[in-house]
Amino acid sequence: MPAIGRKQWAIAEGYIPPYGQGPSPQMISHEALCILNAGDAPAHVEITVYYENRAPIGPYRFTVEARRSRHLRFNDFEMPERIKLDTPFSSVITSDVPIVVQHTRLDSRQSANALLSTIAFPGAD
Amino acid sequence: MPAIGRKQWAIAEGYIPPYGQGPSPQMISHEALCILNAGDAPAHVEITVYYENRAPIGPYRFTVEARRSRHLRFNDFEMPERIKLDTPFSSVITSDVPIVVQHTRLDSRQSANALLSTIAFPGAD
Amino acid sequence: MPAIGRKQWAIAEGYIPPYGQGPSPQMISHEALCILNAGDAPAHVEITVYYENRAPIGPYRFTVEARRSRHLRFNDFEMPERIKLDTPFSSVITSDVPIVVQHTRLDSRQSANALLSTIAFPGAD
Amino acid sequence: MPAIGRKQWAIAEGYIPPYGQGPSPQMISHEALCILNAGDAPAHVEITVYYENRAPIGPYRFTVEARRSRHLRFNDFEMPERIKLDTPFSSVITSDVPIVVQHTRLDSRQSANALLSTIAFPGAD
Repeated sequence: MPAIGRKQWAIAEGYIPPYGQGPSPQMISHEALCILNAGDAPAHVEITVYYENRAPIGPYRFTVEARRSRHLRFNDFEMPERIKLDTPFSSVITSDVPIVVQHTRLDSRQSANALLSTIAFPGAD
Repeated sequence: MPAIGRKQWAIAEGYIPPYGQGPSPQMISHEALCILNAGDAPAHVEITVYYENRAPIGPYRFTVEARRSRHLRFNDFEMPERIKLDTPFSSVITSDVPIVVQHTRLDSRQSANALLSTIAFPGAD
Repeated sequence: MPAIGRKQWAIAEGYIPPYGQGPSPQMISHEALCILNAGDAPAHVEITVYYENRAPIGPYRFTVEARRSRHLRFNDFEMPERIKLDTPFSSVITSDVPIVVQHTRLDSRQSANALLSTIAFPGAD
Repeated sequence: MPAIGRKQWAIAEGYIPPYGQGPSPQMISHEALCILNAGDAPAHVEITVYYENRAPIGPYRFTVEARRSRHLRFNDFEMPERIKLDTPFSSVITSDVPIVVQHTRLDSRQSANALLSTIAFPGAD
């Protein structure tokens, strides 16, 4: 299986709904980043978060092992700081090996959850 | 961080639901355009809106500062004219520096909100 | 404004929910194809619909005038034949000038509508 | 009609909601893979599923006949093993001829269904 993906990705949307309903953790309102590393070497991933009215924050660092998937929630990011709820943001994701990135939100603020998802924008190879 | 994005984007979908429910401004039905400018210079963005039965309107002009995100709602566009609700449209987004554009709708017409999102179509570098 | 788009597009998903609720026509369950022709010449668009267990049907023919948007519902396609509800399909869209295509579904089968949308897959220039 | 698509695709998101409500099979929570083979030869498709904490599983093998659509549910995959519900995954799809792949989820865990969809990430030609 040849490597698939890119080393740089961007997600222009970003928003963690500030409340929700339903059983935790599945139905907690969340903003997620799904990463596939289909290659043979671990992916060292760095995520920078961009805001509307302040300097970008990051990098948030994660490893995705070779031939593994990893679904990360922006809700759970801790270092260098937590991401504020109810605040618009964007993100850039870089990796030392090719990965594939998809963006998903589950919004459970109202009586039934809503979902959105899109492939992220692929940048440099 | 190298620049990421394109200078031209298109969104073929466009529709602002004419009503909604839930707390304002978060749960107002809206059509949004999320823009990331991850570069080192401000992005001067121009948006032209295309309709089914009349000439295009625009440009709507916005600046996205260097290393900033900006989430715009078509609902809030004012100059050269407001966008009518309940009316299909498309849009083309141009910028003098590379940006990334994502399209999102929140539709709160019924008892629970619905969401859609997609990366916009990337045009010229 | 330079032309933006491609002359060939594909949408692998296709499904018209067989029922719905809410006011017509907005809340009727529908499968839509949003087309932007940002160029200076009319787009002559041909859509071929692919099924799971029978030969493809088409082309369905539409014109999108220069500098216009057009939102089409698969529900409304008539010639050469109507598209059956509750039946999986895919589609290929071709045009004689560059266009941009986005796919959207509104599903109002349950008590609150659901939405999905994605940019179509861009083929040949 | 020239061939459209790629021979390699990836979907970074993957999750089958563990329960749902509404009539079967339409409203069962499901994770789907829509494939278009618009070409003149059958597509022999292999899908490998990547997990967070174990080695990838596959290939799952399917044929999509020439000029046909096929909508597959990950829920229904059987060989080499069923996919566990409520478990994050990613997938890579390969074919011996060009195909187009789109990813869709219907989540009916709460009182009204939610939908997401995106074009998959196109890899090698």
